[in-house]
Amino acid sequence: MRVGSCRKVLAPVATPFTSELMVNLNAFVDHCKWLVGQGTGLAVFGTNSEASSLSVAERMAVLDALVESNVDPKKVVVGAGTCSLPETVGLCRKAMALGCAGVLLLPPFYYKPVSDDGLVEYFSRVIDAVSAAELRVLLYHIPQFTGVPVTLGVVSRLVRAYPTAVVGIKDSSGQWNDTSAFLSEFPEIDVFPSSEALLPRALPLGAAGCISATANIQPRAIVDALKAYDTPRYGEVQQSASAVRGVVQRYPMIPALKAILARHFRGGVWSTVRPPLVALDEERTRSLYAELDQAGLAWPGLEEVAA
Amino acid sequence: MRVGSCRKVLAPVATPFTSELMVNLNAFVDHCKWLVGQGTGLAVFGTNSEASSLSVAERMAVLDALVESNVDPKKVVVGAGTCSLPETVGLCRKAMALGCAGVLLLPPFYYKPVSDDGLVEYFSRVIDAVSAAELRVLLYHIPQFTGVPVTLGVVSRLVRAYPTAVVGIKDSSGQWNDTSAFLSEFPEIDVFPSSEALLPRALPLGAAGCISATANIQPRAIVDALKAYDTPRYGEVQQSASAVRGVVQRYPMIPALKAILARHFRGGVWSTVRPPLVALDEERTRSLYAELDQAGLAWPGLEEVAA
Repeated sequence: MRVGSCRKVLAPVATPFTSELMVNLNAFVDHCKWLVGQGTGLAVFGTNSEASSLSVAERMAVLDALVESNVDPKKVVVGAGTCSLPETVGLCRKAMALGCAGVLLLPPFYYKPVSDDGLVEYFSRVIDAVSAAELRVLLYHIPQFTGVPVTLGVVSRLVRAYPTAVVGIKDSSGQWNDTSAFLSEFPEIDVFPSSEALLPRALPLGAAGCISATANIQPRAIVDALKAYDTPRYGEVQQSASAVRGVVQRYPMIPALKAILARHFRGGVWSTVRPPLVALDEERTRSLYAELDQAGLAWPGLEEVAA
Repeated sequence: MRVGSCRKVLAPVATPFTSELMVNLNAFVDHCKWLVGQGTGLAVFGTNSEASSLSVAERMAVLDALVESNVDPKKVVVGAGTCSLPETVGLCRKAMALGCAGVLLLPPFYYKPVSDDGLVEYFSRVIDAVSAAELRVLLYHIPQFTGVPVTLGVVSRLVRAYPTAVVGIKDSSGQWNDTSAFLSEFPEIDVFPSSEALLPRALPLGAAGCISATANIQPRAIVDALKAYDTPRYGEVQQSASAVRGVVQRYPMIPALKAILARHFRGGVWSTVRPPLVALDEERTRSLYAELDQAGLAWPGLEEVAA
């Protein structure tokens, strides 16, 4: 959220499943605590959390488990985007009731194309129905999955209509043109690109940090890069983080993240994905591990939570 | 469902909303009864029902209302597709518990691309979890909205693995190549194209009928066309139904259907869509009405339920 000059990293927290494909709440909480210990905030129920593969009821149960386990809700941004107005409103209300920092809102992603008018109406209805002064919304632009871009026009109208509530955008398009347009058009809100590898281009234009899938596996490295920005250390620290990101990007992101987490934490808990995703096979897993060893992926703090 | 030589029309029932965007259960039930009276079956919660804009809880409540109102559940196929395994399983179980004829299953539609393996695993998990001998599944191919085609390979593997449960496919792609491939590759299952205008090409290849949005507004005409097939009357009856379809297709489908229903039934109840959809404006509505008058849209049975 917009908090002056303080840049931040949010991890779109990967979701561990049991072998019966149920959410493993204990492992989820442990992973969140490790991430917070490494210095990141938590974006639970992002794309890399397999959020759309979870039921609304499961998302509610995970939030309860986090707060009951004393994870600070002020560190938690809740992915509350669904295709339906009532479910999205329900998730936003739950997030606010638990004192979470904010919500990350996908556009409804079944119908396409949709007009700017329709999208503005949708988001406006959500914000009006939640009706909470403390609501803080990050819009979520990820057209390669939603098929529904959050356009500059939509952002502009929402920021003007809800200057207190609409505080940022997560740009996961991977399109630099989109990121630079959000940064230049909306200096008053937080713009988060979705990869640490974009920081060298995005930070000089005012990016708020990043919300990166690979924050699940190199949280400290990304936090360090942000801290090192504008210091002589930056080039080296950033290069190392970008190298790891570069390796992981050559694999299907979620299965790759989980294979890496399975290597370092609790094995079986992390090797499961929900269909329609498919886990990496053994050969791809071995090559991923070898490439990461070469790129020098470090695991600071591993000893704190390793099984 | 595969029932020998009996061709059928299913209406993907449009969903009426109150001005507060809540489902209007009474109007929904009335519309379903009118459609059944006209000779169609009901595909509730299809694309044209704004199904993905409804919460799972709302879908459950609608099903309860239908059965409590003595709509024959054997006339009802339930759109149970969501992005999440537990929600889809829950909707399928509900449909089976109420004695519905079957379920219509979208692929999970957030992640893309997904592999055939991932899709087969997803559908298999659903069918295994529902674990009901009476489960009948229509697969739902509508890649322009899902971004996830139900490929020939997926259909083939599922039909072989679940010959009793997987009984058909609704092909809403609008791509004749897809429809003809399903028809020629899978004579053992029911293939439903999504438009009455495709019947002249699809019926000779063995189509089971159609599941068409415009069955909401001309149910009897489509039923008549199916009945007239292979008789001298067919050309004329089919041409009339296709003409109406042709008009509606030039407008955004769901807003257009609702504008037409609003004209003939209960006004305000039908003129509302849920965002991100946007209702037709007055000018477009007037031109739609004028074109339909010219195409000769008839309203048999209107007197039975008109307000």
